[in-house]
Amino acid sequence: MKPKTENYAQKVRTIFERAAFVSDLGIRLSDLGPGWCESVLDVAPKHLQQDGYVHAGVQATIADHTAGGAAGTLAAEGDLVLTVEFKINFLRPALGERLRCRATVLRQGKTLNVAESEVFAERDGSEKLVAKAMVTLAVVPKP
Amino acid sequence: MKPKTENYAQKVRTIFERAAFVSDLGIRLSDLGPGWCESVLDVAPKHLQQDGYVHAGVQATIADHTAGGAAGTLAAEGDLVLTVEFKINFLRPALGERLRCRATVLRQGKTLNVAESEVFAERDGSEKLVAKAMVTLAVVPKP
Amino acid sequence: MKPKTENYAQKVRTIFERAAFVSDLGIRLSDLGPGWCESVLDVAPKHLQQDGYVHAGVQATIADHTAGGAAGTLAAEGDLVLTVEFKINFLRPALGERLRCRATVLRQGKTLNVAESEVFAERDGSEKLVAKAMVTLAVVPKP
Amino acid sequence: MKPKTENYAQKVRTIFERAAFVSDLGIRLSDLGPGWCESVLDVAPKHLQQDGYVHAGVQATIADHTAGGAAGTLAAEGDLVLTVEFKINFLRPALGERLRCRATVLRQGKTLNVAESEVFAERDGSEKLVAKAMVTLAVVPKP
Repeated sequence: MKPKTENYAQKVRTIFERAAFVSDLGIRLSDLGPGWCESVLDVAPKHLQQDGYVHAGVQATIADHTAGGAAGTLAAEGDLVLTVEFKINFLRPALGERLRCRATVLRQGKTLNVAESEVFAERDGSEKLVAKAMVTLAVVPKP
Repeated sequence: MKPKTENYAQKVRTIFERAAFVSDLGIRLSDLGPGWCESVLDVAPKHLQQDGYVHAGVQATIADHTAGGAAGTLAAEGDLVLTVEFKINFLRPALGERLRCRATVLRQGKTLNVAESEVFAERDGSEKLVAKAMVTLAVVPKP
Repeated sequence: MKPKTENYAQKVRTIFERAAFVSDLGIRLSDLGPGWCESVLDVAPKHLQQDGYVHAGVQATIADHTAGGAAGTLAAEGDLVLTVEFKINFLRPALGERLRCRATVLRQGKTLNVAESEVFAERDGSEKLVAKAMVTLAVVPKP
Repeated sequence: MKPKTENYAQKVRTIFERAAFVSDLGIRLSDLGPGWCESVLDVAPKHLQQDGYVHAGVQATIADHTAGGAAGTLAAEGDLVLTVEFKINFLRPALGERLRCRATVLRQGKTLNVAESEVFAERDGSEKLVAKAMVTLAVVPKP
């Protein structure tokens, strides 16, 4: 997969920095390349649900936004990256100090990209896959 | 659909109050009945993504958690309500002062419930459907 | 929702008649209007899975294709209607003499439509909702 | 992942042989191991949709049923394997002489398994990923 701009890393950094919700949660871009993106989140009490696990909405947010980052590596300078829909399976209770998400573009189309995101929870130095998402994204010129 | 406990309203209030992530976002329970639940969120700048829309993760969180509330109305006193998976379609750019979500249980099984959630954005006094989710939940005795 | 052609009924009939897989299964268009479509299938032994229920693939096919029919009512004369993705929940064991599917367009976009499909099984004169799907479709000019 | 019975290969063969819909389509089990399963289908005119591609319903059926086979490798002798829900993305037009599907269990729970299925189309000797599905399955004792 080939980026449409040399500045694709900068484009993805913007997608993370300008998204207030993502900054507010504490999700940070950690790595990227053409067609993929990684992010991390240090888990805090505010991320939990009623039984002490990381809320499904936090896992969904990191899965969705990192998929957006992966699609962003292949977008043109001024393109918007918008989520059309996603589906996420929660595979294990999400417990741990840190979430890591890796998203990979499965298919780059003219306007639609499909990416998958794996969310891992790190606990006591070991890492487990806790959620997996499949995300459909539209990459469109800014109106 | 019939609640398994007379205190089902209290059970659902707990699901909203004890979920730190949901309180932190500002999502509030607004109404409920056997098999359904409603919630609202006053949109603030911290809920937005890079282009000024309400972040997909916020919409996913309210859709997921309100589906949990709807399933909670049918759960026994000590049951846990856990999301197995969900899928959400974003139908229109989410712009507005307030989100409202209504979740309805489509099917109550022995341990699995399926609910659907509709997310509406209120803007200048009118309301539009901006996202729709289908959520699979496990309702299981506390271990 | 407004059709782009007066011949929208003919367009949808073609979508059903020219789809060999759908004819081979025995799925028939039964009704339609702007933004919605209905179809039926008389259940035969060849539609079953290993435990005597209608196979998930049959339910998925009628859900998907009828969503295509619903999107087809809003498409222009020469447009292709292609499924981008769908998700389907199986709510009850599908048992009965007949399946009926009703699909409704939730959102008509410039190129993407989102529809939902409900699949009912008729048995001894009563009808139950056995599956529900959410379908994303691309409506694009023939290349 | 560990099978619960030594006869797991026989169990999966039964899942394929006794499913009338799958035999009728021509889908054949081709390989399996603990936690995974492969199947193939020689594409015939009856599998196509109105524009000459393999129908989404055929791709969904092979993805779903092969996921059932993968979950079946981990089930006990008398267990039923039932699809709870699945989601499938169509990545490229499905054209070719043959479909091949590989399904892998991502997570084996007490009653719920999550598997993913990749569907490849073979054309002129080369193979392309045309669809990917994520499938939630219930593995339960025969009633």
